[in-house]
Amino acid sequence: MSALSEFSLIQQYFQQLTASRDDVLLGIGDDCALLQCPPDHVIAVSIDTLVENIHFFADVDPEHLGYKCLAVGLSDLAAMGAQAAWFTLALTLPELNEDWLKRFSQGLAKLAKKYSVQLVGGDTTRGPLTISIQVHGFVEPTKALRRNTAKVGDMLYVTGTLGDAGAALQLQLQEWDDEALNTDDKLYLRQRLEQPTPRLEIGQNLAGLASSAIDISDGLLADLGHILDKSRVGARLDLTKLPLSSTMSKVDRTMAERFALQSGDDYELCFTVPAEYSLHIEQRLEGLCTHIGTITDDDGIYFIDDDNALIALKGTGYDHFPV
Amino acid sequence: MSALSEFSLIQQYFQQLTASRDDVLLGIGDDCALLQCPPDHVIAVSIDTLVENIHFFADVDPEHLGYKCLAVGLSDLAAMGAQAAWFTLALTLPELNEDWLKRFSQGLAKLAKKYSVQLVGGDTTRGPLTISIQVHGFVEPTKALRRNTAKVGDMLYVTGTLGDAGAALQLQLQEWDDEALNTDDKLYLRQRLEQPTPRLEIGQNLAGLASSAIDISDGLLADLGHILDKSRVGARLDLTKLPLSSTMSKVDRTMAERFALQSGDDYELCFTVPAEYSLHIEQRLEGLCTHIGTITDDDGIYFIDDDNALIALKGTGYDHFPV
Repeated sequence: MSALSEFSLIQQYFQQLTASRDDVLLGIGDDCALLQCPPDHVIAVSIDTLVENIHFFADVDPEHLGYKCLAVGLSDLAAMGAQAAWFTLALTLPELNEDWLKRFSQGLAKLAKKYSVQLVGGDTTRGPLTISIQVHGFVEPTKALRRNTAKVGDMLYVTGTLGDAGAALQLQLQEWDDEALNTDDKLYLRQRLEQPTPRLEIGQNLAGLASSAIDISDGLLADLGHILDKSRVGARLDLTKLPLSSTMSKVDRTMAERFALQSGDDYELCFTVPAEYSLHIEQRLEGLCTHIGTITDDDGIYFIDDDNALIALKGTGYDHFPV
Repeated sequence: MSALSEFSLIQQYFQQLTASRDDVLLGIGDDCALLQCPPDHVIAVSIDTLVENIHFFADVDPEHLGYKCLAVGLSDLAAMGAQAAWFTLALTLPELNEDWLKRFSQGLAKLAKKYSVQLVGGDTTRGPLTISIQVHGFVEPTKALRRNTAKVGDMLYVTGTLGDAGAALQLQLQEWDDEALNTDDKLYLRQRLEQPTPRLEIGQNLAGLASSAIDISDGLLADLGHILDKSRVGARLDLTKLPLSSTMSKVDRTMAERFALQSGDDYELCFTVPAEYSLHIEQRLEGLCTHIGTITDDDGIYFIDDDNALIALKGTGYDHFPV
């Protein structure tokens, strides 16, 4: 009743692939890693699990899977305005497949190197394919971006474009298609689903300026809903301003809006900014974010449509607009 | 392809059950937790995964399982001489079984309260039963107990008694029994397997004094082997000094020694102490640890038997003494 002992080899394997940081006093290979937090900062941590057939398809490219597992965690650090530093990996594998491991670790390493995050610990066990990654970063405590601090009158923004990942998922499930999409479009969407970009630089640029932030993992309405619930405010969203990729701009507008509002996995940031900082933020993040609405004292979310009419949304998220 | 949304309820459920600490600036409920490390300390982290049918039996008492999952992590902090502070929980569950969850969380909470550790984050997903826990503690960097710092001439110690958990496992697998054991003995052994005691206070007492330490999860020979390999030293073990519980003292001596040497899951500490500190340590930890040998410049481990003869052990651990 012990794990496959050969699995300890994996740690050695992964260890070489990530950044090497001065603030890691002791990395992989002891009972604990020892990590140094810079003065006047606090540690930000988040753990996420991805399970085969729940969060990813069994036939996903292992390199993309490795990339995505880490991206999901880094996106949480981005949403706090934190700098990424270290991660741990708990990997449960049905078998020791060296080709799979090599490609999975390459995907992880690609992202780890890009953001200078170091793998500092892990556990490898035998069992159904399950991947838990905990990310660690640091942030000045007064500058951390929380969910419960949006204020009435704040401007509402999102980074990047919305709905790409959700559309890719529905395409892959063969539950939706649009004749306007060519092969390159579908490749682009799939890349957005499998290799999301954690918005770390943007998060750090927002730290101390934005009044709240969250990353969009469950869909704009659901995640904005978390900000609104925790901050006890409402919002008005201008549907005409939802940022769509050139690919999603080709498809039926109603469907594109639904994906943008409800589908998860985009890993963009949704954030609010006090009106007096909005110009500064828009200049600092030119082209990287879009103003999509305003925080109000409404009860929940209202949409503003093409005709400038207000439409109430009952509740937030998935249940109300099934794709 | 999203997790059961109701699973977010679980976080709320667990959240109430653990300690509430002043150094948690932000706990469960945002993208990250924010944690404050005391000045002049570093963060010690370790992640462990337990998988059904690999690390525990499907019919284990969920309360014992919850306890053990956290105990395994805290034992790693103990082995570094660190103070325990926070943990995160990544819980993958096949179904939402409220009775199971209630009991599992009670087991976790029992230990969390005892050592004032707070649950600061988690992820709950649907899938085959898999539990990853990351523990976080802190320690003064110069006092942390490592594996690679044992020196020739150091005295070798273990805490508690050895072999109880391994005997319990073999009993449960019906691969071993001894007629000297009564029902109470078997209950005691099972309790040692399912509810090990993380040696946190002992670890903190050793910090800055012991020259190396490790927790015994894979068996004394295997884990001592890690200290020897990393420190590039050898050891002589006095077999007559192996600490056995009164229960294991009843059984066939050869089998008891084999369990004490090779079986894992005891979660006692194995540590080395410079000779000049040994009296001080023995007084400080009176009755809590046993001197079992010496660090040498031998190649690997030698045993000293009843007749004071030296017996070479080839390699370390499981493979060589199949129980």
